[in-house]
Amino acid sequence: MSPLLDATIAAVRPADPAVLAEAAAHQDRLTKPRGSLGVLEEVAVRLAGSAGVSPWPQEVTGQMVANFLAGGAVANAFAAQMGASVTVVDVGVAGDLPPADGLLVRKVARGTADLSRGPAMTREQVVTALETGITVAADLLAAGARCLVAGDMGIANTTASAALICAFCGADPAVATGRGTGIDEETHTHKIDVVREALDVNRPLREAGPLDTLRALGGLEHAAIAGFILKAAASRVPVILDGVIAGAAALAAAALAPAAVDHCVAGHRSAEPGHRLALDHLGLRPLVDLELRLGEGTGALLAHPLVCAAVRVMHDVATFDSAGVTDKEA
Amino acid sequence: MSPLLDATIAAVRPADPAVLAEAAAHQDRLTKPRGSLGVLEEVAVRLAGSAGVSPWPQEVTGQMVANFLAGGAVANAFAAQMGASVTVVDVGVAGDLPPADGLLVRKVARGTADLSRGPAMTREQVVTALETGITVAADLLAAGARCLVAGDMGIANTTASAALICAFCGADPAVATGRGTGIDEETHTHKIDVVREALDVNRPLREAGPLDTLRALGGLEHAAIAGFILKAAASRVPVILDGVIAGAAALAAAALAPAAVDHCVAGHRSAEPGHRLALDHLGLRPLVDLELRLGEGTGALLAHPLVCAAVRVMHDVATFDSAGVTDKEA
Repeated sequence: MSPLLDATIAAVRPADPAVLAEAAAHQDRLTKPRGSLGVLEEVAVRLAGSAGVSPWPQEVTGQMVANFLAGGAVANAFAAQMGASVTVVDVGVAGDLPPADGLLVRKVARGTADLSRGPAMTREQVVTALETGITVAADLLAAGARCLVAGDMGIANTTASAALICAFCGADPAVATGRGTGIDEETHTHKIDVVREALDVNRPLREAGPLDTLRALGGLEHAAIAGFILKAAASRVPVILDGVIAGAAALAAAALAPAAVDHCVAGHRSAEPGHRLALDHLGLRPLVDLELRLGEGTGALLAHPLVCAAVRVMHDVATFDSAGVTDKEA
Repeated sequence: MSPLLDATIAAVRPADPAVLAEAAAHQDRLTKPRGSLGVLEEVAVRLAGSAGVSPWPQEVTGQMVANFLAGGAVANAFAAQMGASVTVVDVGVAGDLPPADGLLVRKVARGTADLSRGPAMTREQVVTALETGITVAADLLAAGARCLVAGDMGIANTTASAALICAFCGADPAVATGRGTGIDEETHTHKIDVVREALDVNRPLREAGPLDTLRALGGLEHAAIAGFILKAAASRVPVILDGVIAGAAALAAAALAPAAVDHCVAGHRSAEPGHRLALDHLGLRPLVDLELRLGEGTGALLAHPLVCAAVRVMHDVATFDSAGVTDKEA
């Protein structure tokens, strides 16, 4: 597809079963009843060692970009709370954004084509957007990030997300298509029709493989986030997924490199019905489930301290042996 | 009941409706779709301003006390992650604990009487335990804590919790009594019988009012945590509740001073069925729901950054006006 993309995909390895087994055994030695940390134990075993953070909201309107860059958005507040930095990447905003500190202008195109009429992206566009995600992740990792957070800021990208989820999970558009920010019955019906048309008109591409499925149905942000996830996975760094857009992108990444899922954590579950389908398909359980529907990476940022806590247990907690605590279930 | 307890209860005031309304209006001015932070918006409005932390696990066996004091327990790891300090208070451990830094020996009794035969505590014991919780909270607040976390460490205190939940919520023992750390069918049936006997034999005390209900059915840790909650509420400082023991204690606190609930946040929901009943009765929605069943305040500690994030949104996020972002739903 492209040397960078190919190399990144080739570098994605599944979790080492021996390390997983060792981590699970270590959990059982810690001074707590076995299994008592519920889902967090699974997270800690999956990650078996990480720290730090660097989140990544993406695609914004001009006003909200300025708000992000001024530190006034919710993502900024959450990032500050969690000790994270925010990088804003423009991969496909339709207009021109004024240059600003903290804004990476990596515009692949000014929006995509209408996915209900044909492919949303050309092959060159989807590869470039994937490569953009890869290089942004690479730069953050080179700067020292030990955990990546994938989020987005955009308008109307739940439609493309629903189409991707239908294509990758085999779901029906009526089941996978939600109401986004709260549309009425008529608009919802229309949205379902658009997703169905997109799946029909792009059937040949969908059958050609995951890269063509992504270019047929995805937005530039989906492709960029998929690349971002692939690079994190290839580097064995955990990536916390935000809502339905990141979830749809993760489906594409997993279709390109199945082992990528081993390096993903589902930060939260959004209210979008397609998100539940995507997480089920990926086999990921969300850490936070609080009816958030903002995007911007906010759900993933909230999950960051939970991920850190899960990992910290593995490092800090005494074992029954070391603490001299009697293990009743030995 | 006692001058300190009376004064504390008298000082518990409901949230100011004008402040709540102002906080809700402020939420709607922030640069995000209205309601998009889901449950966190409710938390932020409820609290309308707080920070810091000081958690409080309580009642431990000797070995685990040593583990806590050495920093090797899960609660220590979570507290370190969240920037919290841990205070261990002995209000009723049956044996003697060796003195140690960080251990507050405030022993009221060496365990309680059998609640299925009569009242678990004398009137003096329950008042002393409540006062202990009040003074521990007061000391932490005096030392600068701006948020309190109530947890526990004990064995077999889910039975007393179930009895308290039945008494305060009007629930049936078969519904409210869980399996704790994983008991078999026969033991579970016996546990339900114990709860039912405790409710029957203590009926006159239950009808005498909340203080007598607490002394009839509660453990010393329930009374101490109830006092801790009352002092936090009286001081208008948020208190994050851990699992079913803190939930049962919160029912007692709320029965003594209904407005105490306004200052409580449900950190998480444990797997115990009675906990769901208690939270429903209190009208609190848990922030974390990850099948944790450890206690020690761990569920509440995980919720702490979420509470901070919710509050931080109110302080940090730009309003539509201040950021010059167009508000489409004006």
